[in-house]
Amino acid sequence: MKVKVFRKEHFNAAHRLHNPEWSDEKNQRVFGKCNNAHYHGHNYELIVEVKGEIQPETGYVMDMKVLSDIIKENVLNKFDHKNLNLDTLEFANLNPTAENIAVIIWQLLREKIDHELDLKIKLYETERNFVEYPAD
Amino acid sequence: MKVKVFRKEHFNAAHRLHNPEWSDEKNQRVFGKCNNAHYHGHNYELIVEVKGEIQPETGYVMDMKVLSDIIKENVLNKFDHKNLNLDTLEFANLNPTAENIAVIIWQLLREKIDHELDLKIKLYETERNFVEYPAD
Amino acid sequence: MKVKVFRKEHFNAAHRLHNPEWSDEKNQRVFGKCNNAHYHGHNYELIVEVKGEIQPETGYVMDMKVLSDIIKENVLNKFDHKNLNLDTLEFANLNPTAENIAVIIWQLLREKIDHELDLKIKLYETERNFVEYPAD
Amino acid sequence: MKVKVFRKEHFNAAHRLHNPEWSDEKNQRVFGKCNNAHYHGHNYELIVEVKGEIQPETGYVMDMKVLSDIIKENVLNKFDHKNLNLDTLEFANLNPTAENIAVIIWQLLREKIDHELDLKIKLYETERNFVEYPAD
Amino acid sequence: MKVKVFRKEHFNAAHRLHNPEWSDEKNQRVFGKCNNAHYHGHNYELIVEVKGEIQPETGYVMDMKVLSDIIKENVLNKFDHKNLNLDTLEFANLNPTAENIAVIIWQLLREKIDHELDLKIKLYETERNFVEYPAD
Amino acid sequence: MKVKVFRKEHFNAAHRLHNPEWSDEKNQRVFGKCNNAHYHGHNYELIVEVKGEIQPETGYVMDMKVLSDIIKENVLNKFDHKNLNLDTLEFANLNPTAENIAVIIWQLLREKIDHELDLKIKLYETERNFVEYPAD
Repeated sequence: MKVKVFRKEHFNAAHRLHNPEWSDEKNQRVFGKCNNAHYHGHNYELIVEVKGEIQPETGYVMDMKVLSDIIKENVLNKFDHKNLNLDTLEFANLNPTAENIAVIIWQLLREKIDHELDLKIKLYETERNFVEYPAD
Repeated sequence: MKVKVFRKEHFNAAHRLHNPEWSDEKNQRVFGKCNNAHYHGHNYELIVEVKGEIQPETGYVMDMKVLSDIIKENVLNKFDHKNLNLDTLEFANLNPTAENIAVIIWQLLREKIDHELDLKIKLYETERNFVEYPAD
Repeated sequence: MKVKVFRKEHFNAAHRLHNPEWSDEKNQRVFGKCNNAHYHGHNYELIVEVKGEIQPETGYVMDMKVLSDIIKENVLNKFDHKNLNLDTLEFANLNPTAENIAVIIWQLLREKIDHELDLKIKLYETERNFVEYPAD
Repeated sequence: MKVKVFRKEHFNAAHRLHNPEWSDEKNQRVFGKCNNAHYHGHNYELIVEVKGEIQPETGYVMDMKVLSDIIKENVLNKFDHKNLNLDTLEFANLNPTAENIAVIIWQLLREKIDHELDLKIKLYETERNFVEYPAD
Repeated sequence: MKVKVFRKEHFNAAHRLHNPEWSDEKNQRVFGKCNNAHYHGHNYELIVEVKGEIQPETGYVMDMKVLSDIIKENVLNKFDHKNLNLDTLEFANLNPTAENIAVIIWQLLREKIDHELDLKIKLYETERNFVEYPAD
Repeated sequence: MKVKVFRKEHFNAAHRLHNPEWSDEKNQRVFGKCNNAHYHGHNYELIVEVKGEIQPETGYVMDMKVLSDIIKENVLNKFDHKNLNLDTLEFANLNPTAENIAVIIWQLLREKIDHELDLKIKLYETERNFVEYPAD
């Protein structure tokens, strides 16, 4: 009797899309406005999905308060009100696209959550652009 | 050519999380504010997902008006504007967590919907805490 | 150069609409499902509006962090995860309709916010039923 | 390392549900208000999901700007501010239910998107009625 | 102690913007896609605002169930799943812009609601285009 | 017969709250996380409100397409995907709080919109923090 439980959190961050191996002209052509040298930013909406059995004693798959605390400690404290390119180790050498941010968040949370529970990340960069990892 | 169709409904209910086999102190420690003796409540948003073939004559997997009526008769009439712990048989001896409510709603609807159609329940307890059953 | 600033918070509570001077039959006729003896509940969305001049040194009308803390201390701590009828002094003898809850919240916050700032409360009982006080 | 990326677009259209092989009376009984002879309409919200590997050079599965342009050219230009029954070839002989619209949009986009990428369509006819194709 | 109460309803309709005193060319130039001869449509979100004193016996400005019934009988039954240009008397000779629809809805409801209560209409044609009447 | 019409747009930008006349320590104490030296960012939701008479020939207060174009040309082109502190003249010497951004947007639009029409700006920095100017 497996159930998925979801917790929604958010963080606000600046970022810039840029490939340092490309010319400025190619970066501009590929990433357009997202390549702006002085950064732009987003309100990221983050949905963390955890799948597992209901625990009979609690009726929970996982305590949402515990999950929320794990997300705050391992993701929001790192990324909220930060410049992803300049203020984080994770994106010092990795382009902070929504896809890559979702993968990094999954890696940060995977080691903090019981391995009998499956984990998935949905990340909204805007209301109209969002991603999910892993894909199945 | 299978398609999923979704119908969103809502109900408002009071509940309390509590395990009668535990001490008051342990209930308080595990369930926190959700253990409040006099109950609290939620606007539950319910999304019912039905999967099946498109019927060529109608272009429908299932008439959404029929699905809405089934949900009203079998779920909303039981739970809307009720105290889940005190006013329902389903949660007289089952902790009304979002996980358990989703499983019960699935059981209530499963017998009312054509067995060639797959059924899934998504239940929002708040905008930030929600669940899905079955998880497959 | 007056500006309105808004802070959105939420709380979850149980309540029951009931007039103790009426018969059970009249209470049932007037308040319908909302009169359920064992209570029901809502996710209340609360928007607090403060109107005043921009402070030149900060660019703020009021620090939203400070406003959020005032709301938490004076409103959420009283009402969140509570039964409004049974667990609060404010509604021991006052029917907890959305209208009355909004007036009470305004009174609780009015004394905590600088009197040069105007104050208004918007309260969503559901996505489809909401109120605003004062109406001016 | 497969990721799903999603792009949300919208279009406004009129339609009527009708089976020309049925009597007016049967059409009215089956489709109810949706059979209104002079049409009614919707704000359709369209979510296009594309699944694939992250490209290391860009950090993208697919450039959302390119995906948005493909959707505009192949779907919105056909359906936005149109009468689906009268103004489109696709629904000249196909009942424009949400299910059928989703299948048609999938077919229109499938040939425009790299075949190494999986494609899925979610279509909201209203906030409360929506569909997804293909179903798995 | 005046309070505003709000009720949200919705209806789906087809319409076309057109001035019969203008040439087809001018209609096309002014109204663009909204002039499409075969109509297009919208999910209209309607918020009805009523302002008045709280009634001490009920704690209500006005029973939201009564307000909802008045809206259904006088507005939704006329406009829901209809073609505003062809199926209604109100827009037989009046261009069904959001502005005009809001004014008509105000007129339809004004005579049905106690004249000691102020009335205002907010109408969303889309999430991004909406109107309010009267303006103060 | 005055009506308010509203147009919603959005832009994504980086910013930092900072008063150059204060010490780093005081900036940190007053602005907290929003003072982060390398900036953070937001998805700003902008609602522009225009109030005036309905034009009998069109049924419009103002063509929403024209309003949208004015906003794009005068606001979005300046601020979208920009660093408000570094990339704009308007905030080179003005702290980019939500309050100040709303005032600046009002000034930018005021000269572009017919002076018989009243203008108001609502700006969402996040879903939970937003402002309106002018206040009455």
